[in-house]
Amino acid sequence: MFVKNTWYVAAWDNEVGDEGLFSRTIIGVPVLMYRDSAGRLVALEDRCCHRGAPLSVGRREGDCVRCLYHGLKFDATGACVEAPAQPRIPPQARVRTFPVEERHRWIWIWMGDPERADRSLIPDTQWLDHPDWCSQDGYIHYDVNYLLIADNLLDFSHLPFVHPTTLGGSEDYAAVSPKVERLADGVRITRWTIDTEAPAFATKVKQWPGRVDRWNIYNFTIPGILLMDSGMAPTGTGAQEGRRVDAAEFRGCQALTPETENSTHYFFAHPHNFAIDQPEVTASIHQSVVAAFDEDRDIITAQQRSLSLAPDFKMVPLSIDAALSQFRWAVSRRLEQEQQQPAVIPISPSRDVA
Amino acid sequence: MFVKNTWYVAAWDNEVGDEGLFSRTIIGVPVLMYRDSAGRLVALEDRCCHRGAPLSVGRREGDCVRCLYHGLKFDATGACVEAPAQPRIPPQARVRTFPVEERHRWIWIWMGDPERADRSLIPDTQWLDHPDWCSQDGYIHYDVNYLLIADNLLDFSHLPFVHPTTLGGSEDYAAVSPKVERLADGVRITRWTIDTEAPAFATKVKQWPGRVDRWNIYNFTIPGILLMDSGMAPTGTGAQEGRRVDAAEFRGCQALTPETENSTHYFFAHPHNFAIDQPEVTASIHQSVVAAFDEDRDIITAQQRSLSLAPDFKMVPLSIDAALSQFRWAVSRRLEQEQQQPAVIPISPSRDVA
Amino acid sequence: MFVKNTWYVAAWDNEVGDEGLFSRTIIGVPVLMYRDSAGRLVALEDRCCHRGAPLSVGRREGDCVRCLYHGLKFDATGACVEAPAQPRIPPQARVRTFPVEERHRWIWIWMGDPERADRSLIPDTQWLDHPDWCSQDGYIHYDVNYLLIADNLLDFSHLPFVHPTTLGGSEDYAAVSPKVERLADGVRITRWTIDTEAPAFATKVKQWPGRVDRWNIYNFTIPGILLMDSGMAPTGTGAQEGRRVDAAEFRGCQALTPETENSTHYFFAHPHNFAIDQPEVTASIHQSVVAAFDEDRDIITAQQRSLSLAPDFKMVPLSIDAALSQFRWAVSRRLEQEQQQPAVIPISPSRDVA
Repeated sequence: MFVKNTWYVAAWDNEVGDEGLFSRTIIGVPVLMYRDSAGRLVALEDRCCHRGAPLSVGRREGDCVRCLYHGLKFDATGACVEAPAQPRIPPQARVRTFPVEERHRWIWIWMGDPERADRSLIPDTQWLDHPDWCSQDGYIHYDVNYLLIADNLLDFSHLPFVHPTTLGGSEDYAAVSPKVERLADGVRITRWTIDTEAPAFATKVKQWPGRVDRWNIYNFTIPGILLMDSGMAPTGTGAQEGRRVDAAEFRGCQALTPETENSTHYFFAHPHNFAIDQPEVTASIHQSVVAAFDEDRDIITAQQRSLSLAPDFKMVPLSIDAALSQFRWAVSRRLEQEQQQPAVIPISPSRDVA
Repeated sequence: MFVKNTWYVAAWDNEVGDEGLFSRTIIGVPVLMYRDSAGRLVALEDRCCHRGAPLSVGRREGDCVRCLYHGLKFDATGACVEAPAQPRIPPQARVRTFPVEERHRWIWIWMGDPERADRSLIPDTQWLDHPDWCSQDGYIHYDVNYLLIADNLLDFSHLPFVHPTTLGGSEDYAAVSPKVERLADGVRITRWTIDTEAPAFATKVKQWPGRVDRWNIYNFTIPGILLMDSGMAPTGTGAQEGRRVDAAEFRGCQALTPETENSTHYFFAHPHNFAIDQPEVTASIHQSVVAAFDEDRDIITAQQRSLSLAPDFKMVPLSIDAALSQFRWAVSRRLEQEQQQPAVIPISPSRDVA
Repeated sequence: MFVKNTWYVAAWDNEVGDEGLFSRTIIGVPVLMYRDSAGRLVALEDRCCHRGAPLSVGRREGDCVRCLYHGLKFDATGACVEAPAQPRIPPQARVRTFPVEERHRWIWIWMGDPERADRSLIPDTQWLDHPDWCSQDGYIHYDVNYLLIADNLLDFSHLPFVHPTTLGGSEDYAAVSPKVERLADGVRITRWTIDTEAPAFATKVKQWPGRVDRWNIYNFTIPGILLMDSGMAPTGTGAQEGRRVDAAEFRGCQALTPETENSTHYFFAHPHNFAIDQPEVTASIHQSVVAAFDEDRDIITAQQRSLSLAPDFKMVPLSIDAALSQFRWAVSRRLEQEQQQPAVIPISPSRDVA
């Protein structure tokens, strides 16, 4: 069961080319994406309304897509506009469309009631294409439920154990409890370390006058969007008070999009505002993150297997779970709300055009 | 759920040799077939009544089969006639037998009540071994429910889309609605094209005085037997009135036999009455059909995957679905009838001997 | 469903080394085994109580194991003794432990109520490490339910059919019904052949004055422990009366331990008391057994597949099934008893320490 009335990341923008058809399953629904001749995104249910064949094995015809089973042709509003040997096309011959929006390298999709698709709710990931920031695109496919990955992202205590040589840092670091705050739709985690040594990687790419203040601020919101503000600035320059002077900063953008109950798309990038003219630095940061995420995937996949053998397993909550418990609670509350709403997902062309 | 009281095609006759054992699962039931010393077919449930081991990993002993787990020996009536270390063989130690009948290259089997196995109901496929006709044996295994294949066979509109370079023909051809008639146990589709060009393949194998009349007449009946009469004759010779003068004809014989709910055996051949002394023509016809069926299998398998993700999917019926809807309705009605009948499938030796 | 209050064989002793962690699933429960610094066995549920990650992908720290997800450390009593960033460890933060006992090369485990783990109930397999006996360790993994293997082991009639060239012997041998007796928790099968030829393998390794008396005595008890006393002695020396003079004897030790409902661990060895200074004889005996067990696995796996297609299959019992029916009845009775008992499986440290 997934939250429906929310924006999911469906793809990196360059995954959907000017030509051709791109298909990805999102919260259990196969979605066909393509660009019309004006470059506008179209997102249709990837299942012909006639006999259920996937449209993605069909072909583009102008701004339309034709099912290559019986030849029904659908336009960008999902309407069937041609059906061979069919004198009259019935009005219910249409496929569902989904509101989509392209913003700062990510394609966002709304899987719920199109009436409620408020584009102002799309999280800001401006650092993904801002000229002062630099990053590489990341994507990992997980064979686990997305909440197990959310748990992992909302937990600092695993860093020294899962990532001893990558993200890990010392076990002392993990022992510091971060500040956890409830957000309207999720949770914020804040951690400051004042007057500390600059870490090794930072001294390689930047001169530091002395000691630094370091921060890590996570915003993790429904459906699974992590926007991270982390970095360091020379001690005494007022970083904690909001001034960022000579700071080396990251703006991690990460998004979990459930594919099915047991698989997840994971989009990520870690824009940085230092050494942006040094591609090897960007590549090195990306490699470190990917290496760490591979470590995460190993343990989370093992956890998923273990849990699947014990459907009645009750987790023993610890205080280190404050953030993830908060997020899981927010998801549960939202799911309850959606179930109480009348489930009206109309497919009339007047409103669900992307 | 499958129709039981009907004749299914179980095999091509030469799949069951004079020696050895042949096993095939039909509507979910593993069936062992072999020939006794007089060449008569035997069909037994391929599961020892004792502990359930498959008899097909056992061995022939004369006209009997011995289970190679505990050594029980069964005769052609399904009776256990030997059980090592067993002083008295209990009468219930027997396996089910099935009525089978060999006709014109196909082995037919009756999976329901043996009392009702009326051999006069076996469809006539005389063209498969008639000296004036020529064809090659075809078999394809599908990982889809048989009704999706039936849908495909009962639909002409997919031809230009799925088979653009094989069976396809023009999209105009697909746009002509065939005549659809209800049969007692299925549906008949008839299509005539009067005074048209002979197609390319036909001009290669036969001299035509001028234009031709072409026909396609499908009889598709429960459980999934398609007998096709198609061909062409010189225009003005009265083909549509029933005279076949200088005609080039096909008598396609196709049979769908469900293996399980999600897999199907597909037997087929396309006997033709022209160029029967030219094996390369027969081979070419067969290759064209196989190539087209491979195209069908690709799209139907994609359709099955797509539908399996959406159990609540409701197909939008179109007028091109008249024939397949009619067949599905006939199957549903027959299944209802069978469920209302008392489900008596006795295994007494007096009547279920093949 | 499995019997819980019984001793299962969990491993050969050398599978659990002095270092490292060993994991094996037993009756559906993943169990982590290791040895503390004093060499004592520890058996913990291989699933962290916190978020369910398997402890076996964690690491040893002294006599403890640390989960390498969030760093919880557990001691040999299953108690969590360290949790990073956790000011107070809640008492329920512990994993289940299992009574284990090492005896004569086998590690035994009690999966039920630790209070009832009476170590005097562990079967005697002294021949596995007795200096007068010699054998090789055997282990086979089966993808079938353990009861199908138990059936096989309790049945002599399959020998000439499944093992014609290995264990088989003549079909006459199979035709002799053994004596079957009920035991408290299983069944005993006894077969004597008086005044017969020594078999070929026996004449190779030992001089025989003339004809011999041969015996086969099986004790097969819950949960699936087969202790076999078989051998031969010169006729007239009183073997059947209990004197073993100049005898060549085997003491087969075999244990079935369910892994899941559809898979089984099978431990076995066949200690012999003759030619114990000839490793090639021991190896040859072992190879013969392994070859025969591979034959068994083939037919039992085919049987399992066949049965899984027919959930309503009713086996037709024969008189050769007396022993296996008796054992299945004993298992059913024990399962009923366990279901009537209050299912109290406490994990308090006072009593479940291995």
